[in-house]
Amino acid sequence: MIRDLYSQAINGLMSSDEWIIRQDHYDPKTNLQYESLFCLANGYMGTRGAHEEGTRVSIPCTYINGVFDKSETFMRELANMPNWLGIKLYIDKQLLSVDECEILEFSRALDIKKSILFKRIRLRDEYGRETLIEGLRFVSRYNIHLGAIKLYVTPINYNGILEVENIIDGSVVNFCDAPRFKVKHTALVENGSLLDDGEYIEVKTRDFGMHIGTGCKIKLFNDEGENLINNRQYGSFGEQAIEFVDCPVEEGKTIQIHKLTSFYTGRDVCEEKIKDAVLNDLSQFNYKSINEELDRHTKIYDAMWNDADIQINGDTELNRAIRFNIYHLMSTASEQDDRINIGAKLLHGEEYGGHAFWDTELFMLPFFTYVFPNTASNLVKYRYHLLDAARKNAQENGFLGAKYPWESADTGEEECPDWTIMPDGSCYPCYVAKYEHHVTADVAFGAYNYYQITNDMDYLLQYGAEIILETARFWSSRFEYNHESNRYEIFDVTGPDEWHEPVDNNCYTNYMAKWNIQVGLSLIKMLKSEHPQEYRRITAKISLHDKELELWQKVKEHVYLPKGKDGTLFEQFEGYFDLTEAIIEEYNEKDMPVRPQILKSVRLSETQLIKQADVVMLMYLLGSEFDKETQRVNYDYYEKRTMHGSSLSPSIYAIMGLRVGRTAMAYRYLRRAAFIDLLDLQKNTREGIHAANAGGVWKTVVFGFAGISINKENQLCIDPEMPPQWKEVIFKIHFHGSQLQIQVNCENEVSVELLSGKGIDIIINGKSLRVE
Amino acid sequence: MIRDLYSQAINGLMSSDEWIIRQDHYDPKTNLQYESLFCLANGYMGTRGAHEEGTRVSIPCTYINGVFDKSETFMRELANMPNWLGIKLYIDKQLLSVDECEILEFSRALDIKKSILFKRIRLRDEYGRETLIEGLRFVSRYNIHLGAIKLYVTPINYNGILEVENIIDGSVVNFCDAPRFKVKHTALVENGSLLDDGEYIEVKTRDFGMHIGTGCKIKLFNDEGENLINNRQYGSFGEQAIEFVDCPVEEGKTIQIHKLTSFYTGRDVCEEKIKDAVLNDLSQFNYKSINEELDRHTKIYDAMWNDADIQINGDTELNRAIRFNIYHLMSTASEQDDRINIGAKLLHGEEYGGHAFWDTELFMLPFFTYVFPNTASNLVKYRYHLLDAARKNAQENGFLGAKYPWESADTGEEECPDWTIMPDGSCYPCYVAKYEHHVTADVAFGAYNYYQITNDMDYLLQYGAEIILETARFWSSRFEYNHESNRYEIFDVTGPDEWHEPVDNNCYTNYMAKWNIQVGLSLIKMLKSEHPQEYRRITAKISLHDKELELWQKVKEHVYLPKGKDGTLFEQFEGYFDLTEAIIEEYNEKDMPVRPQILKSVRLSETQLIKQADVVMLMYLLGSEFDKETQRVNYDYYEKRTMHGSSLSPSIYAIMGLRVGRTAMAYRYLRRAAFIDLLDLQKNTREGIHAANAGGVWKTVVFGFAGISINKENQLCIDPEMPPQWKEVIFKIHFHGSQLQIQVNCENEVSVELLSGKGIDIIINGKSLRVE
Repeated sequence: MIRDLYSQAINGLMSSDEWIIRQDHYDPKTNLQYESLFCLANGYMGTRGAHEEGTRVSIPCTYINGVFDKSETFMRELANMPNWLGIKLYIDKQLLSVDECEILEFSRALDIKKSILFKRIRLRDEYGRETLIEGLRFVSRYNIHLGAIKLYVTPINYNGILEVENIIDGSVVNFCDAPRFKVKHTALVENGSLLDDGEYIEVKTRDFGMHIGTGCKIKLFNDEGENLINNRQYGSFGEQAIEFVDCPVEEGKTIQIHKLTSFYTGRDVCEEKIKDAVLNDLSQFNYKSINEELDRHTKIYDAMWNDADIQINGDTELNRAIRFNIYHLMSTASEQDDRINIGAKLLHGEEYGGHAFWDTELFMLPFFTYVFPNTASNLVKYRYHLLDAARKNAQENGFLGAKYPWESADTGEEECPDWTIMPDGSCYPCYVAKYEHHVTADVAFGAYNYYQITNDMDYLLQYGAEIILETARFWSSRFEYNHESNRYEIFDVTGPDEWHEPVDNNCYTNYMAKWNIQVGLSLIKMLKSEHPQEYRRITAKISLHDKELELWQKVKEHVYLPKGKDGTLFEQFEGYFDLTEAIIEEYNEKDMPVRPQILKSVRLSETQLIKQADVVMLMYLLGSEFDKETQRVNYDYYEKRTMHGSSLSPSIYAIMGLRVGRTAMAYRYLRRAAFIDLLDLQKNTREGIHAANAGGVWKTVVFGFAGISINKENQLCIDPEMPPQWKEVIFKIHFHGSQLQIQVNCENEVSVELLSGKGIDIIINGKSLRVE
Repeated sequence: MIRDLYSQAINGLMSSDEWIIRQDHYDPKTNLQYESLFCLANGYMGTRGAHEEGTRVSIPCTYINGVFDKSETFMRELANMPNWLGIKLYIDKQLLSVDECEILEFSRALDIKKSILFKRIRLRDEYGRETLIEGLRFVSRYNIHLGAIKLYVTPINYNGILEVENIIDGSVVNFCDAPRFKVKHTALVENGSLLDDGEYIEVKTRDFGMHIGTGCKIKLFNDEGENLINNRQYGSFGEQAIEFVDCPVEEGKTIQIHKLTSFYTGRDVCEEKIKDAVLNDLSQFNYKSINEELDRHTKIYDAMWNDADIQINGDTELNRAIRFNIYHLMSTASEQDDRINIGAKLLHGEEYGGHAFWDTELFMLPFFTYVFPNTASNLVKYRYHLLDAARKNAQENGFLGAKYPWESADTGEEECPDWTIMPDGSCYPCYVAKYEHHVTADVAFGAYNYYQITNDMDYLLQYGAEIILETARFWSSRFEYNHESNRYEIFDVTGPDEWHEPVDNNCYTNYMAKWNIQVGLSLIKMLKSEHPQEYRRITAKISLHDKELELWQKVKEHVYLPKGKDGTLFEQFEGYFDLTEAIIEEYNEKDMPVRPQILKSVRLSETQLIKQADVVMLMYLLGSEFDKETQRVNYDYYEKRTMHGSSLSPSIYAIMGLRVGRTAMAYRYLRRAAFIDLLDLQKNTREGIHAANAGGVWKTVVFGFAGISINKENQLCIDPEMPPQWKEVIFKIHFHGSQLQIQVNCENEVSVELLSGKGIDIIINGKSLRVE
């Protein structure tokens, strides 16, 4: 057990190895990856796993969900908050850090069961003094404003004075290691000491002037909880608040350092009360405080895991990797706030600025809807709150209804920039926002899917219907009518595969748009008959008249869907089959496709190589619309051409692989998805955790191997196809208000237990079963 | 020649080796020492030799003389100004720095002839890209507000985009590497871009709100002076202004980076005009600007060296070391500003906060008075401007007249703290300010000595007389009358040797106090007879009446001077001879005394070991009052007991060694003094250059080996005693308004040439000579 490496003070708190993500040695080259892997989030804020004492290579970030800023950069992005982690330990001015000292022992361990980051580091400085530093850190899921650190410091072979700097660093920037892109999103408002001890930094975002206050206190104790601090002095260092404390230390005697931090923003309380709220959180801070908070925090995680865990008997490593993905996903989303969403890299890194993409609806939302429906409800309401911005976006682009932005932050405006700066400083236009319109259908799909799974009619009537109708309306205006062929087409559009842009009649987009309109029409029908009052309210509100619905009907019936000659193979877009043939033939040691030789002579966009699932994505989403053979043909064709340049791709190929009988391949794809960050397979884990992929991993297990789906009658179906490596898989889902525990064994036998809610009819391996 | 290492672009500017202080390899352990050695000062500001790109171990400081602040620390100290050096070079986000890359070549070279810091560094990054960076830096002696950097950057084996950050860093603090002591002295006022390009930071000191503005511009040129910058963007990063620029670079092709910076403070122009003054300095910046400024700068240094050089034929190494000391001393003092003085570590480091001590009057002022009398005039006027504060200081301590503070900054108040924090955080009282009163006599000595050398009667009448009379008056009140023995004594006092404090009747103090009173009395006599109007004005101004002068006379006649039984050996203070005998018997490899064994059992203060010249210092200053034999006896006695814990000590023992016939010992002491910083003999060169020692080195050559002195008739005397190693020494001095070139050969033959001014009678080797 990894916990056996740790002292008694720590190891009693640590879970067993299947819940531990470990780092066994320090290497500056992998430090940024571990900062992402070890990021702690609690739905409110996320703090990357930077070292308290700082390292030469580091991107220390804390983000608070919803706190965005643009300033000199080209989009509103999550603003890096003051770094609250800073605890620098010195002996005679010698910083005890992995960069400055010889590392005699090194272990960091993320306990995903309890959401605690542990560390044990033994250092020798240049004078031969050895120090053992153990500790833990968490951001509380109980009081989401709190972050806490405990360190246990033991001089191994000396007596001395331990000097400690307790730091809140407001000088942080975004993209600190990229000179061309780095940007400062906050301006200092206050840097001061607190009444008795501790320090406080208040900053505001530079564009909107949103205030963020953070205060902290530090205490030094012996094991009896007695204060050890000898001297204490606060210093104001521009954007850094640094409190200096010291205490005598003795060979072999451990001292404890407790640091408690609190964050509040103008999103939480009114600006004038931010400091009071912070002070209040810190006011009772004593020897027991962190333990007590930790207790409350781990109880919540226990409950969360009770709902969210997937237990696989037969592949411990993979099981841990799956849990790792679930852990970060569920840690990031908020059960309290319906004005925030989930960034494409969670709260774990800088890439994509914390923006919500279609990733949320199609990759993450299924997990939350089945596991944490309250959280899912916030995610789908977020889109409703930004419906007006989507309406404006449609209007500005010459369309009707609501057009959701490709990238969404707090205002709902399009945050995807129109141009991109290359590493060499050259600018090239970025067409994604201009052409990649399918997100609008994806948002509608998410809203409807949430309703299907939860049966949450209140949501549908109050929020979802308006989204679905306004997006259907958008599509009706987005299609162009081709008189010659009597069909509706979409020109100049980009599908999920962004390596071909723009194209005409992207299969995925046309089909999803058609689906959106169709769901709009069904919804109208249902509302009219079952909720006539709401029907009148909604259609009046959005001025939707029957005349318009006639057009929808016409569009729906005549949407053009490009197909190959035999009628089975879909053409990803018009002209795709005419592109240069290119097939993936090799895979590297990480099971990732090797770039085919042809790319040395032909440009990528001129080949049939695609970035990610596109036609296959469509068939995954709307599976019931395509027969098995069609799915198989398309899968086999496109799988050989998909480079998985997006992390959204492998999980879809895993699930679809199972549908079409490519079981072994599906398992390989699952592994690839599950380890994408742990093994840094995309080489960009330093920039955050692949959020959509994390949701995709859950989906692959639950929708793929465990075979969960919803049929046309909106019934839950379970058709498992267990891999030979697994003996058993156990997990829980919510469906139509009930919670079920589902257990599948290696014979694909399913047992279902009703944990809460009313009895329910489900279809298991084709047979109907009443679960009560 | 070192310059042969450098490319053509650089080496034409470099002086020959005897003027070059070199660093041949980079070691973080010696980097702080080299930052001090390579500090560039111009009388207005000083900038330590930190690397433009920053290093892990660094204390990057720029000080502007006269800009002090206290804030949370315990004394007003020179506030670290925004660091203007920052130029970070990146290739694909890879910082080109000695810490981050492999060092293939390394050379830094301080040209003390021209006051230019050169560098040549060839680096290989982790991708194998090699880059040659050569460059130069200077702070102009022409426009003292300007600092300039030129870099020549050559990609050796790659093409790419060079990314450059042009940084002004206002986040700097004092004592940045000492957690217990570090303090921020400035607060940000403005951080903005300039009109077309460039950036500007304005800060103010936290206590007095003195504003300091600094702006800079950066340009990238090819050798034809064409602009190479492709992109340019300014970013406001809290207390840092960072301008990003980039340009394409090609293998083997050199590009030039020119950075020009300007500083103004509220001491220079009114607060509202600071930014305009900075902008004005930068407004015409073009390809030629730095070369032109450099030209004007080196012309001034040529002229300064023409006055200040000491040329020794026979010991090149020592000669360079002597020049090194002269260089830093003359670089720091101002010929323009009589409200500033010279800090004990020059503008080169943090220790002693830039405070003036007795070091100025007794160690540095002789150099300036003989070599740069205008600068000397500013130094002696500084004390006059702070006479009121000295009067207040006397009054507050219960004395009459003027009592100068042990440590003096801008206000003239005592800046020496009453307590000191030990590295372990414990406080102990610091008695220096309370007891070490001799500084007041030393200030009077400086004023009078300046007058003796320059014959500047205007100074004496307008400034000096008041200082001498008010300090004499202080001493008359400081002495206590002992009725029993009919003598005047000083109890509870500390002499130059601070290892015994406080003591009674310190020889040095009593004698200097007596001298002060005596000079006061002579001055009164002279004024009365020769300048009766001024006599009336001055005595009226300070209310000095004959009655008081009677007391002075009485004190002078009855000052107690403790001596040994035989009447030749002075007792450093009452009771000194009763202390535990302790003799220095060993010297380490750097020729520094080894602590005697007795210190293992007896406390230092209970032994006869002393920190520095005390009785010997007295005999050095007032040599004509003691016969040769007395001087020899005291020298031999105290030399064996002096640990040279202060850098002020070796030069005095060198000069006195010559007086008493210890010639070989004198030479050893000279070497020790000359190399004190170059070889880091005191192990604290990282904290600045030993300013008093630098003056002492000059004095040792000129007063010691060349034998310059002034006799009782105020005539210049030359009695050389050349060391066997030297063939010849040549230097220039001013005396009584004339400038003389003095040449001494190995036979101690002297030739004197009158360079300017009127003819003068001097005594050479005992014989009178008229020089015309």
